[in-house]
Amino acid sequence: MDFTVSDKMQTILKMINEFVEKELFPLEKEFVKKDFHELLPLIREKQKMVREMELWAPIYPPELGGMGLSMVDHAMVSEALGRSPLGHFVFWCQAPDAGNAEILHMYGTKEQKERWLAPLVKGDIRSCFGMTEPDMPGSNPVMLGTRAVRDGSDYIINGHKWYTTAADGSQFCIVMAVTNPEAPTYAQASMIIVPTDTPGFNLVRNIPVMGHEGTDYASHGEILLQNCRVPAENLLGQEGHGFIMAQDRLGPGRIHHCMRWLGICHRSFDLMCQRANFRKITRDDQTLASRHIVQQWVAESAAEIQSARLMTLHAAWCIDQVGAAKARDEISAIKFYVAGIMQKVIDRALQVHGGLGMTDDTILAYFFRHERAARIYDGADEVHKTAMARRILKRYA
Amino acid sequence: MDFTVSDKMQTILKMINEFVEKELFPLEKEFVKKDFHELLPLIREKQKMVREMELWAPIYPPELGGMGLSMVDHAMVSEALGRSPLGHFVFWCQAPDAGNAEILHMYGTKEQKERWLAPLVKGDIRSCFGMTEPDMPGSNPVMLGTRAVRDGSDYIINGHKWYTTAADGSQFCIVMAVTNPEAPTYAQASMIIVPTDTPGFNLVRNIPVMGHEGTDYASHGEILLQNCRVPAENLLGQEGHGFIMAQDRLGPGRIHHCMRWLGICHRSFDLMCQRANFRKITRDDQTLASRHIVQQWVAESAAEIQSARLMTLHAAWCIDQVGAAKARDEISAIKFYVAGIMQKVIDRALQVHGGLGMTDDTILAYFFRHERAARIYDGADEVHKTAMARRILKRYA
Amino acid sequence: MDFTVSDKMQTILKMINEFVEKELFPLEKEFVKKDFHELLPLIREKQKMVREMELWAPIYPPELGGMGLSMVDHAMVSEALGRSPLGHFVFWCQAPDAGNAEILHMYGTKEQKERWLAPLVKGDIRSCFGMTEPDMPGSNPVMLGTRAVRDGSDYIINGHKWYTTAADGSQFCIVMAVTNPEAPTYAQASMIIVPTDTPGFNLVRNIPVMGHEGTDYASHGEILLQNCRVPAENLLGQEGHGFIMAQDRLGPGRIHHCMRWLGICHRSFDLMCQRANFRKITRDDQTLASRHIVQQWVAESAAEIQSARLMTLHAAWCIDQVGAAKARDEISAIKFYVAGIMQKVIDRALQVHGGLGMTDDTILAYFFRHERAARIYDGADEVHKTAMARRILKRYA
Amino acid sequence: MDFTVSDKMQTILKMINEFVEKELFPLEKEFVKKDFHELLPLIREKQKMVREMELWAPIYPPELGGMGLSMVDHAMVSEALGRSPLGHFVFWCQAPDAGNAEILHMYGTKEQKERWLAPLVKGDIRSCFGMTEPDMPGSNPVMLGTRAVRDGSDYIINGHKWYTTAADGSQFCIVMAVTNPEAPTYAQASMIIVPTDTPGFNLVRNIPVMGHEGTDYASHGEILLQNCRVPAENLLGQEGHGFIMAQDRLGPGRIHHCMRWLGICHRSFDLMCQRANFRKITRDDQTLASRHIVQQWVAESAAEIQSARLMTLHAAWCIDQVGAAKARDEISAIKFYVAGIMQKVIDRALQVHGGLGMTDDTILAYFFRHERAARIYDGADEVHKTAMARRILKRYA
Repeated sequence: MDFTVSDKMQTILKMINEFVEKELFPLEKEFVKKDFHELLPLIREKQKMVREMELWAPIYPPELGGMGLSMVDHAMVSEALGRSPLGHFVFWCQAPDAGNAEILHMYGTKEQKERWLAPLVKGDIRSCFGMTEPDMPGSNPVMLGTRAVRDGSDYIINGHKWYTTAADGSQFCIVMAVTNPEAPTYAQASMIIVPTDTPGFNLVRNIPVMGHEGTDYASHGEILLQNCRVPAENLLGQEGHGFIMAQDRLGPGRIHHCMRWLGICHRSFDLMCQRANFRKITRDDQTLASRHIVQQWVAESAAEIQSARLMTLHAAWCIDQVGAAKARDEISAIKFYVAGIMQKVIDRALQVHGGLGMTDDTILAYFFRHERAARIYDGADEVHKTAMARRILKRYA
Repeated sequence: MDFTVSDKMQTILKMINEFVEKELFPLEKEFVKKDFHELLPLIREKQKMVREMELWAPIYPPELGGMGLSMVDHAMVSEALGRSPLGHFVFWCQAPDAGNAEILHMYGTKEQKERWLAPLVKGDIRSCFGMTEPDMPGSNPVMLGTRAVRDGSDYIINGHKWYTTAADGSQFCIVMAVTNPEAPTYAQASMIIVPTDTPGFNLVRNIPVMGHEGTDYASHGEILLQNCRVPAENLLGQEGHGFIMAQDRLGPGRIHHCMRWLGICHRSFDLMCQRANFRKITRDDQTLASRHIVQQWVAESAAEIQSARLMTLHAAWCIDQVGAAKARDEISAIKFYVAGIMQKVIDRALQVHGGLGMTDDTILAYFFRHERAARIYDGADEVHKTAMARRILKRYA
Repeated sequence: MDFTVSDKMQTILKMINEFVEKELFPLEKEFVKKDFHELLPLIREKQKMVREMELWAPIYPPELGGMGLSMVDHAMVSEALGRSPLGHFVFWCQAPDAGNAEILHMYGTKEQKERWLAPLVKGDIRSCFGMTEPDMPGSNPVMLGTRAVRDGSDYIINGHKWYTTAADGSQFCIVMAVTNPEAPTYAQASMIIVPTDTPGFNLVRNIPVMGHEGTDYASHGEILLQNCRVPAENLLGQEGHGFIMAQDRLGPGRIHHCMRWLGICHRSFDLMCQRANFRKITRDDQTLASRHIVQQWVAESAAEIQSARLMTLHAAWCIDQVGAAKARDEISAIKFYVAGIMQKVIDRALQVHGGLGMTDDTILAYFFRHERAARIYDGADEVHKTAMARRILKRYA
Repeated sequence: MDFTVSDKMQTILKMINEFVEKELFPLEKEFVKKDFHELLPLIREKQKMVREMELWAPIYPPELGGMGLSMVDHAMVSEALGRSPLGHFVFWCQAPDAGNAEILHMYGTKEQKERWLAPLVKGDIRSCFGMTEPDMPGSNPVMLGTRAVRDGSDYIINGHKWYTTAADGSQFCIVMAVTNPEAPTYAQASMIIVPTDTPGFNLVRNIPVMGHEGTDYASHGEILLQNCRVPAENLLGQEGHGFIMAQDRLGPGRIHHCMRWLGICHRSFDLMCQRANFRKITRDDQTLASRHIVQQWVAESAAEIQSARLMTLHAAWCIDQVGAAKARDEISAIKFYVAGIMQKVIDRALQVHGGLGMTDDTILAYFFRHERAARIYDGADEVHKTAMARRILKRYA
């Protein structure tokens, strides 16, 4: 057993950490206050710097211009970027583009790669992923209402999607739709590339989430597909393989999210400790840090973050060793475990800040309201616990 | 021991509940989306209906046009109104105006009452209360940086306040300021009425709270008092009595808040149960309500709400019987206890709603982000626990 | 709404509290160390004193020599007695005898009352209640393996019971057995009085619970009924009414238990506060009471106990007003709510005692290990939550 | 980063696991029921088997006949042994002997090693460690009342100890006593070897812990040292170095305990899953395993155990890499974190067992009551959290 981080990774992480602190933390007040699209010019500048440092899209495979990191190293990069809500986007590792690129890389035809993947990894276009449906439990990817029917050399797609993250401003959407309704449950759906300017692909609204509709990348779209016609060559992979391909992006995606959450934990923890040291609460200048209850929160948070971090790195290591399919339990466990700890850590950090914590003068209030979603998306906590427990209990039968 | 609610109160509560459901619930989507001042015309209509039903300002004493309710009955009214974020405002029972009116009623001179109290209870003007300061722990009302210095027949006030709720659009502010810096700690501060158009009374900004600066009543102001000069007759009560008068509003204010939170609990609970019954999660139409974990949340929430409710009603009863000063423990306890339960209940209700819970399509996301403040304002949980425990432990010495 | 306790009850409770403190607390060290039957002579002395004070069996109806208390008053008596594990037994209000007496009083024939009830309420004999079975979920009273078959003028009973509390030394057992296996589920079982010296009624062992088998009243028996023959006139109430009669004892029994647990909470809380004040932890004589984390526990425990207490008294009041059947939700809620709070309060009190808390030098270690059962007997927490939630959710359908 | 376990260790762990399951699990019912000394003959047989398997005292350095394991490997051995309360004793790795042997090995003179260490590692004698005092906070090793005064070539020791684990039947005790009361706080105490048959070394009683005084190894002694005279050559290490030497045993001792607790977690988890699969709760044979709430417990427990395990292995690895002194935070964190998780896991397993869980028919009730001490000994949770937090907060200053 060896917990050593390689020298190379230590160097990369140091560079990223410094960049995030120096270049991105100061942008956050604007980020919280303004529409995302207003921020884009500033973000483009920072992205230019990232390219110049040769840290662009670090989690991508080398053939796509990335660093070809192992899952463990990928994880630590995601953690460093996660300390700011702008980190992943500025370094071009953001969901759902990263996952879409991976799918295109694995399953795309030469033409699909040229048209969609190449500009995507360069940062010239953005994309979205249309899976979740308002009338279906998001946690159950085999329950889909969207249908794609073959009509000559085209597919005609009808359906209703929401929580299509970053649809606003995307050039294409990978849509999950049932193509084979008579097939067995897990073989009914396919992935189809739908350019967002296709007639019948309607972005109804950016969903108002926690008080904001958002814009551009920082938004979640509700989409109506109404007789939306795309050529059959836009099928990604094989018909009926949609669910299997979705599973492929799950393992790495989970690591990605969990380590991003750990970045948020680190940031919140830092802010908590700094505030506790700074805030005077008595006339003789005792600080919040002198209070045992604050100390309990510091110690508990440190322990919980450490435990969640090791668990996620271990899950990443399992994926590196045996693949995501055999690491299902490890991957399920981190989903709910890390999300739960993040919520606790943010909550304590906010409480230590008192009234200030409720304001947008720190990033904590943003974390508090938006990261609440972590316990819901990609399968609610309860769904993962149930699935994981059933597998475990079977082994005891 | 008798938990009966009088027939009269049952009738009043029924009227309020129906009005809130029928007239206010439908306004909430606008409330969450728009600036408060845009909503004012609609709100004025509803307020007119309330006056016509003779339910205007029900918690005020009869001589101010209210119903002269006992604290227990007052509590139940606040609970009913709390189910909507618009309830208290539409029925004109909202903080901080209710507390300010009470202070003016108890301590105001005839002239002060005529000029400020009369239009306030009628709903013609609004007011704010300037106590909390950004550089001082909000939980410690004896630590104030604001100074009011006597200069001839005037006071000149300098200081920095924030979280001055509803300052935007208020006609006057009751400012807590140190007038007697040499006096013992609890006798240093006074309350002074400051018209908001006084030169030197500067509303710097509406603080951005959980993503929104808000407007008008739905805002929290940051205020700089810079050589702000008001006539000495604006002193409210006696010099040095500011802290004692602030305590007076504490007991009833606490009941008011806690029962409002219980209203939020009821609302969240209702939404949770309705959603659990409605949301199908399997192909054979099983609902979330069939899941034991959801059932656990329903049962636990019901029990917790009931326990918190009885505790708050008991504290109200104690105030009715022996006064707020002798009911300090009861009042401290509900502050943190009810706030904690509210946060849990909202969190569960949101989780049951899944992705929908994160959106502003229900009121839950608003409750989730804004009512987080309940564990902070009027003294953070930890401050109340410490104060209460010290009193208790002394009795065992 | 009125939380006043009558003068009469205040006097009774004061007498009980003083007696428990002065006469019973000192016995506890022996109680924890010795077999219960060794303690009986000492206990008999205390019971004599209770009779002389005319406080014998206070919760019984007047016609049985008790005080005929309302359920609310009964509850407060149980709370006072619960502060010591000897309280209920010394005042002769202990389970399962109190419940058995109630059943006999309500359903017994004249002969049954003369033979069993009269000596039971006088304290001349003891009894047990044979319901729970090792092979059946204790939480489901309609799943019973024990069979009673009519044979001429007798019943022949076969079955396997356990957790038959206080079987050791009992003169009779009220056995729940299926008499009508073809009847609808809730009409299959009957209650039959079985003298414990009946051939075929075999006390296999006192179950070792938390390290001790116990003796006499302080024990839980495992019983094999092997062709155990009793005359048909030992049937209690009507054939097939066993389940309904069992429900009758449920409401009051629940109040009884919950208030006993609250007595345990009060005792543990007192010990915690006393220890916190006493225990020095630094060279300059600071005590545990000066630590904020201990203060948090004190405040949280005080609030939780208060909330649980009011909830239980309210449930008792509901039983007084509308009967147990209509107060099912209130009764379900207190079962799991109060048990959970008791476990937390005991745990904190133990922690404040450090190593001492693990020893039998205080009563806390006894409470910690034995009262863990509160979350299990009479239906596990989870069972009550599920049942209660289903009733609630139905109302939202 | 590499989580691989070496082939050699996998083999050793497999052997230990099988032995523990096959030979020790069946002894546990006797262990719970009988005095430990009655069990000794049976235990000796098992120890003989362990020697024959060449697994005797595996955690000792090779020069003491052990395997010279790294701290990480040592940790995994302790985990495997911890699944049974008899594991460590049968494999001769039990506290406090293991720690005492280590101290003697590091600091003992040749004569001390011959007389005490040699028979100790062979299993011919046992020992105890006299540190904790009833009148001093156990968590503060620099507060000691015991005094050792030099008198000619002897020390005369007076003091009062308790929780001297396994004193009953020990041949010697390493006593912590103040020898240099004028020295700085951390340089006042020394360790002195006191043969237990020395006049003035009085084992007052075995402390009754959770209902049992215990005997022999399974006991905690209260000891009065009354003018207890030992030759000065019994001093272990140097005068005034007692505290530093105690720290030396801390790091490894902590790993040892935490991994033992993880063994208890694994065992409890296994029992929970087995019971959930076995226990039928409906007439159509649904089991507890089908209940979502049980599934939540299974998944949460699995995740928590995994997180605690990785954290402890990481702390062990840090000790291997940089020594215990530099791994203080890692070592503090596991103390409270693992203890807390163990308590939760045991509690859930017990709850799943229902009434059976309260009995001594499984090992869970033993774990429940005795392992509650984990949050207290070697420094209560709160003490570790405070110490750890203060170090962390300083880094942010």
